[in-house]
Amino acid sequence: MLDFENWTCPLPLRDTPTVVMGHGGGGAMSGELVEHLFLPAYGKSAELTDSAVMPFPGGRLAFSTDSYVVKPMFFPGGSIGDLAVNGTVNDLAMSGARPLYLSVAFILQEGTPLAEVGRIATAIGAAASAAGVQVVTGDTKVVDSGSGDGVFVNTAGVGVVPAGVDIRPARAAAGDAILISGDIGVHGVAVMSVRSGLEFSTAVTSDTAPLHGLVSDILETNTDVHVLRDPTRGGVSASLNEIARAAQVGVSLIERDLPVPAGVSDACSLLGLDPLQVANEGKLLAFVPAADAPTVLEAMRAHPYGRGARQIGTCVNEHPGMVVARTALGGTRVVTMPIGEQLPRIC
Amino acid sequence: MLDFENWTCPLPLRDTPTVVMGHGGGGAMSGELVEHLFLPAYGKSAELTDSAVMPFPGGRLAFSTDSYVVKPMFFPGGSIGDLAVNGTVNDLAMSGARPLYLSVAFILQEGTPLAEVGRIATAIGAAASAAGVQVVTGDTKVVDSGSGDGVFVNTAGVGVVPAGVDIRPARAAAGDAILISGDIGVHGVAVMSVRSGLEFSTAVTSDTAPLHGLVSDILETNTDVHVLRDPTRGGVSASLNEIARAAQVGVSLIERDLPVPAGVSDACSLLGLDPLQVANEGKLLAFVPAADAPTVLEAMRAHPYGRGARQIGTCVNEHPGMVVARTALGGTRVVTMPIGEQLPRIC
Repeated sequence: MLDFENWTCPLPLRDTPTVVMGHGGGGAMSGELVEHLFLPAYGKSAELTDSAVMPFPGGRLAFSTDSYVVKPMFFPGGSIGDLAVNGTVNDLAMSGARPLYLSVAFILQEGTPLAEVGRIATAIGAAASAAGVQVVTGDTKVVDSGSGDGVFVNTAGVGVVPAGVDIRPARAAAGDAILISGDIGVHGVAVMSVRSGLEFSTAVTSDTAPLHGLVSDILETNTDVHVLRDPTRGGVSASLNEIARAAQVGVSLIERDLPVPAGVSDACSLLGLDPLQVANEGKLLAFVPAADAPTVLEAMRAHPYGRGARQIGTCVNEHPGMVVARTALGGTRVVTMPIGEQLPRIC
Repeated sequence: MLDFENWTCPLPLRDTPTVVMGHGGGGAMSGELVEHLFLPAYGKSAELTDSAVMPFPGGRLAFSTDSYVVKPMFFPGGSIGDLAVNGTVNDLAMSGARPLYLSVAFILQEGTPLAEVGRIATAIGAAASAAGVQVVTGDTKVVDSGSGDGVFVNTAGVGVVPAGVDIRPARAAAGDAILISGDIGVHGVAVMSVRSGLEFSTAVTSDTAPLHGLVSDILETNTDVHVLRDPTRGGVSASLNEIARAAQVGVSLIERDLPVPAGVSDACSLLGLDPLQVANEGKLLAFVPAADAPTVLEAMRAHPYGRGARQIGTCVNEHPGMVVARTALGGTRVVTMPIGEQLPRIC
């Protein structure tokens, strides 16, 4: 493994410590970047081809994509590389799919230290390996120094959906228990704490993690899971509002049951944010029939990424399409869909 | 279909004619962008979900990705939207795959006119429809005005490889005829002609086109096609060098047989470029056994995108890994792998 932490002159032949336009030209320098940086970082010896051909079991294919523009690229608990793998793996997992293959496409800003690209690629390789998915194809473009910002990463993912699995927002139904796998708001607060101009001291670290193992354990309970969703951008609030609208059910939350850790709560007070709107990168919401909730919660709590699982609300017939929270004081408030974003470039 | 050419206030509720950070926040504004801009542009009525689930026939899956950062975004003969569809469709086609599904991920710069985003999305919808592939999933991120440049697009594509098809660079073999489907250097010259600071007058327009129909016609000849490659960044030169190295064969070109149209030749003289290194976006190279060449050429010429097909060289045992051109004067020259890029951001 290359040592990107103490890396000064990574590529053979070209004595440049930073990204130059030629790295995106499809010629010799592009080839060197792939051969001497990306392949070792991904732990691969073979070529990454323009189009990879792999076996696929047939049946239903899940397909997902996300670009990552998080700023800064390295933050407490992870990096843009971890997000790029886990985020796409999780999108696949939320349809019940078993993730198989990833593509990784970089848009590099001219002048970015190659050591940073190397650290990110190494994080991608490690995260893919931890998640058991293969990086099979990729692309690199370079833009001039005024037209980018360090490293943008896009990943797309392909997975296979097991027979009989039907998990989607429209299946939410009145009577469903709404479960969360653990503490909320953690990722967003971790990134904000190191955002230039906004730094504050906190022990909160990102929760970025691949959730398909947790999903697999949930599915093995043979309960009728209706909806799974990872509440990333827009937080729990955006995810619940989308599900409520898609299924035309009401969502009723118990505010005191929301697992908001003290570090998140403190930071949100400081910044004037609602923890329900802060991004998560390693949590999932599950809608399951109330009778199945104890079984599913037990399975979740037995998994390392679901130890803090609990019920936070219920699906109801009232106020279809809306999310309403019962407050600690016994009142209710409407939890609205966020308009834009509390703080941009969080993933 | 929305009229993005004469478009002033596209989205309901939010009276903004340009991209703002909130469009990338995963909240209400993101939802409006998808519902009122992307879905109509792609000709879809249903939701684009984080993870799409589709039937897949099984067997071998082809998977490819490319980001597009072409500058300017609109050029004679096409746009970044056309490239984003055709480029990924072509990468799949070059492994003999039938393209099925596309993902489309945008990285938008704050302040970009929404009408431009709309024109690009419309081009994506039209190109996907023309190519017979479905846009099934997508993502949108927004970066602040100093951190991007208009619109960057990533597409990933999934296709199915028919049984018995084995097309890859390493299969090039001495004795193979090397065929090109038509004029070279056209796309690169078209983009350069409108590049700010470099404008020149030319009748050359981009050749951007989906080539899987042409590939399908080639495969139907039941000949033993060894290699297919679309010579994009780095041009014919980079593609042939990569194939020569992968298969450890020599490539012998006849320079006078290279189809370089007058407009490309003139522009290359003006700019000091080698047409062999200029990008193409609607051409393919085919390596086939010499005995099969007439059959394959006939099939290519019968297809609209292969009318100018001809043989440009041969695979030889000599100089393995190298590309050598026989010049018009009877001498030979080594056609080297381009180092970087003659002109960046061409796709």
